[in-house]
Amino acid sequence: MTKEFFKVTEPDKVLAFADDLDSVGTESVPLMAALGRVLAEDMVSHENLPEFYRATMDGYAVRAASTFGASEGNPAYLMIKGFVEMGKSPDLSIAPGEAARISTGGMLPEGADSVVMIEHVEAVDETALEVYRSVAPGQHAIEPGEDFRKTETVIARGQKLRPQEIGLLAAFGQKTVTVCKKPVIGIISTGDEVVPIETQPGEGQIRDINSYTLSGSILAAGGVPLALGIIRDDFDTLFEKCSRALETVDMLLISGGSSVGTRDFTIEVLSRLPESQILVHGIPISPGKPTILARAGKKMIWGLPGHVVSAMVVFSRIVRPFIDRLCGKTPGLGGAVRIPARVTRNISSAQGRIDYVRVRLVEKDDALWAEPVLGKSALINTMVKADGLIEIDMNTEGLDKGTRVSVIPLS
Amino acid sequence: MTKEFFKVTEPDKVLAFADDLDSVGTESVPLMAALGRVLAEDMVSHENLPEFYRATMDGYAVRAASTFGASEGNPAYLMIKGFVEMGKSPDLSIAPGEAARISTGGMLPEGADSVVMIEHVEAVDETALEVYRSVAPGQHAIEPGEDFRKTETVIARGQKLRPQEIGLLAAFGQKTVTVCKKPVIGIISTGDEVVPIETQPGEGQIRDINSYTLSGSILAAGGVPLALGIIRDDFDTLFEKCSRALETVDMLLISGGSSVGTRDFTIEVLSRLPESQILVHGIPISPGKPTILARAGKKMIWGLPGHVVSAMVVFSRIVRPFIDRLCGKTPGLGGAVRIPARVTRNISSAQGRIDYVRVRLVEKDDALWAEPVLGKSALINTMVKADGLIEIDMNTEGLDKGTRVSVIPLS
Repeated sequence: MTKEFFKVTEPDKVLAFADDLDSVGTESVPLMAALGRVLAEDMVSHENLPEFYRATMDGYAVRAASTFGASEGNPAYLMIKGFVEMGKSPDLSIAPGEAARISTGGMLPEGADSVVMIEHVEAVDETALEVYRSVAPGQHAIEPGEDFRKTETVIARGQKLRPQEIGLLAAFGQKTVTVCKKPVIGIISTGDEVVPIETQPGEGQIRDINSYTLSGSILAAGGVPLALGIIRDDFDTLFEKCSRALETVDMLLISGGSSVGTRDFTIEVLSRLPESQILVHGIPISPGKPTILARAGKKMIWGLPGHVVSAMVVFSRIVRPFIDRLCGKTPGLGGAVRIPARVTRNISSAQGRIDYVRVRLVEKDDALWAEPVLGKSALINTMVKADGLIEIDMNTEGLDKGTRVSVIPLS
Repeated sequence: MTKEFFKVTEPDKVLAFADDLDSVGTESVPLMAALGRVLAEDMVSHENLPEFYRATMDGYAVRAASTFGASEGNPAYLMIKGFVEMGKSPDLSIAPGEAARISTGGMLPEGADSVVMIEHVEAVDETALEVYRSVAPGQHAIEPGEDFRKTETVIARGQKLRPQEIGLLAAFGQKTVTVCKKPVIGIISTGDEVVPIETQPGEGQIRDINSYTLSGSILAAGGVPLALGIIRDDFDTLFEKCSRALETVDMLLISGGSSVGTRDFTIEVLSRLPESQILVHGIPISPGKPTILARAGKKMIWGLPGHVVSAMVVFSRIVRPFIDRLCGKTPGLGGAVRIPARVTRNISSAQGRIDYVRVRLVEKDDALWAEPVLGKSALINTMVKADGLIEIDMNTEGLDKGTRVSVIPLS
């Protein structure tokens, strides 16, 4: 006598709707402000890096051939021509049998192709050098363009910029960078029992947690959260709030409405919005089944479950890829890494749905273990204790203790 | 004839100096601004969460005992007493044999101890309910304090706040949060060959990359970078710059000075600062050996190698734990996770030092592989291609293909 309230859409099909989305625009920002942002245009090198033959060790710039066969017992004798001043083009050149003192980062003189380390020479006097080890051409030096060649694509658009990419942009003199704009994601909390956090809840009332967990998750995903407040369970108010929100936000999350009545009513609001279409009404995942996805014009609107854990899991697994697209991220470029581990105990799971199990990571016996955090999806403590999620697919009935799993980190 | 320029300090002993450091102070910030910050005081619950017996499913609030033995073939018959309005204390109570309609998030009436799901009942008329499945006491409901009990420590000081911790603070009505202040980390770039990034480098010159990679790394670590510019290789200028910087910063990084001459000179500047002490002069790691650590008064000053990769590796493995302490982070609380993988090829390594090898993570044959990124430590492209580092310890001569390793992610 189980009632089916809605037809579900499998996660892969839900995620396919993200393919329709694109970056919300581009903007130019100062280099340091680009950390963590997504590059909007391929960065192509307009010069060689480095531009000149550069020493990577302290020592003497030489022609490698002048050192061939040199050893402690049979040193090579070279003539010291002078030294290379840092940051300048050397005013000397190196012929066979000659050497010039050079420091790390210095420019190799004309004719030199390598550096013999200071540790492997002895200056007999001001002009005579004994070399105790041979070097190969190019050794202890980097050649022009060895780091990056001119006209090479050095960072692809859609890449999130880490400190090393910021450094690379600095190397090419980029004072500003064109990055993708951050999408603005609206959040509407619903529920007659939900009160603002500054309020002392009365009997039967609870503070608005989801606006905060979702705002935090949006920030961590690179979006700009816009918390639009709490709406009572009233058709007209929600309809009006959604219509107005869609004028400014790039995507909208409606949290709450897990109860059948509220859900029906969110669906009705969403289907009445201009140019709207209900794309998804239920996803076979747990927690998070009663998730709704609608599109009004080109903007996506989510009806997320009210339970705090369910809303966060749906955000992490389903909503976030949509935000990544709005942020301009190229799928697969620098994606979130999963952490291999083994489960500490048997975990049961229902077939026909994907189960997301909160886990804590524990190092034990030199291996990494995923320990399930038990508890209802209405309890935020389970998310506070968790380091990540494991995914048990539709066709698996459960996992035996010791099974290898891939843990999805929770920011 | 190899010359030993300095006595090295093993990494563990270097890291032990971080134990002397403490958070640089506390400040109160609005709740949403606390995301990613470090909690400065234990958060103790001043109320139960939730405060009342709360439904987690849509259905009927009942005494569990009234449903015992119920099945599809043999339903229990209950009397519907009315319904529970959301966000209010119910104006009815439940005796044995009675039920009240309730929605997810609703407050259980006096006398009820569980909820029977809407899917498992049928309302015969307005007052008669058939129940097809039994429930246990507490089922589909959370009891007062089940999420967090009053006076419980819900988040420990020293914990970095993720979206779920922000949500939890919201649940307890914390509009503001006392977090640890962000330490200000100064960066001085040295080297006669280094020019500001807005300059077109002349022959033998190179743009200042390290100020940017280090600023980015400091931001990612939760500090405030303060780039203090480029100083020519001149004792008085560097001494003056360091002295003045120490008046405002909480820690100082001097980048560059990999060459023997510059290194000697940085050491001299550091040892002449007021109340100064050279703590470390060389660390047996590669890259990164010529690292200097000094303390002037209570402030730590680093002489970092000039090669971009060396500076980033030393930052990630050695400097960062010092910043974590200045940020108030409790060691071991929510620490960076390492990712287990296997190496794709043999990697050679010298005994007597820790080798850090840049690796790219690759999924292959359903397993995660760490593929070494080859290249000199003066080449930033190797860091751009890398997802993480693997550590080969002092007593290991190298790793065979397929060896299991723990990859340290690069932000």
